[in-house]
Amino acid sequence: MSTSIGVSGLAHLFGIVSIILLLVWLLHYREGIDYDSEDGFRVFNVHPLMMFLGFIFLVGEGVMAFQTVPKQRPVPKFVHMTLHLIAIVLGIVGLCAVFKFHNMRNIADVYSLHSWIGIGTFCLFGLQWLFGFVTFLFPGAQGSTRARVLPWHRAGGRVLLFMAICAAETGLMEKCGFLNLKPYERETNLVNFLGLSCFSSMSSNILQSHIA
Amino acid sequence: MSTSIGVSGLAHLFGIVSIILLLVWLLHYREGIDYDSEDGFRVFNVHPLMMFLGFIFLVGEGVMAFQTVPKQRPVPKFVHMTLHLIAIVLGIVGLCAVFKFHNMRNIADVYSLHSWIGIGTFCLFGLQWLFGFVTFLFPGAQGSTRARVLPWHRAGGRVLLFMAICAAETGLMEKCGFLNLKPYERETNLVNFLGLSCFSSMSSNILQSHIA
Repeated sequence: MSTSIGVSGLAHLFGIVSIILLLVWLLHYREGIDYDSEDGFRVFNVHPLMMFLGFIFLVGEGVMAFQTVPKQRPVPKFVHMTLHLIAIVLGIVGLCAVFKFHNMRNIADVYSLHSWIGIGTFCLFGLQWLFGFVTFLFPGAQGSTRARVLPWHRAGGRVLLFMAICAAETGLMEKCGFLNLKPYERETNLVNFLGLSCFSSMSSNILQSHIA
Repeated sequence: MSTSIGVSGLAHLFGIVSIILLLVWLLHYREGIDYDSEDGFRVFNVHPLMMFLGFIFLVGEGVMAFQTVPKQRPVPKFVHMTLHLIAIVLGIVGLCAVFKFHNMRNIADVYSLHSWIGIGTFCLFGLQWLFGFVTFLFPGAQGSTRARVLPWHRAGGRVLLFMAICAAETGLMEKCGFLNLKPYERETNLVNFLGLSCFSSMSSNILQSHIA
């Protein structure tokens, strides 16, 4: 149990490190973040921030809620559901930002591998949330049905974590390609460490759920 | 149990579909595959083929060996170990190919997020293999130690599957960036379907191990 707490501590730590690295990247190396700006790149930068906060950080915290919040029922379940609902709302803002950027610059939508994985993750995550809400919260299925559905909900959740991190890493690669970052530049290394840190946060999350 | 067989069937199926898509891409849309060629791109193409065959297909099959080969001990364990050893050998050839390509064209080595994730995966996979070999095969630890180590070996293996697929998807994105593929071209869509197919193979693999 104490090992599990240590590993989930790593997941929180890498999550916070990733937020810091992402903010340094967007605010110091890139153009800043502003949904209502005339500068398309400032609008675009809302996308990585929202997707990261929603689908890496909050989704990860939501998965760990069963370990980290007081165990009195139904507290962890509500925290789990609420964090994932906030993630969906942030995801909608993040997706709107990238579509707005594409409109401002006449760029085609949803053609790259990153966008296919990302849109797929978002839609399946929405379905998983709805399915979980109906089965485990309101109206809630019978006890035997819940017990049968739970392993599928957990396995599906792990695959979605897995998809979210693939979406994040491919997104970082796509942006590096567009920016044409040079080998061993400070910004290149920062983006690489950001990618590794997101990945480490999710891996620790998966690991702690296996050994909890 | 029958659901588990169905899901592992999907993992095999998507694995084979991915090999076909990869070969169509490298042989029809790209320059072909030849380690000894004067054409750097033909040398480079050995890299995705070897890494895919080793670290997506064979690693995935190795993980499923405990379900798919006859259960008489120690058959599944030997198949598991051997498939992963072959994966390491193919990985070495694949890595040599990309370093040879970089030398031929004076390109910097190991600077992108893809290369960091890829090299990390390869090194950790080698350590996991060695650790597994010593603990479970030769000389083999005591029963109680094996029982204590097994959950860590399995959890570490899942994280490595996860890293391998991130390496593959970021590699595809990096190549798409270098090729500057246009939206909705046939080749763009082929690469996207290849990425989704690799991903689906690994997800089915992870899913079947959760519900087996």
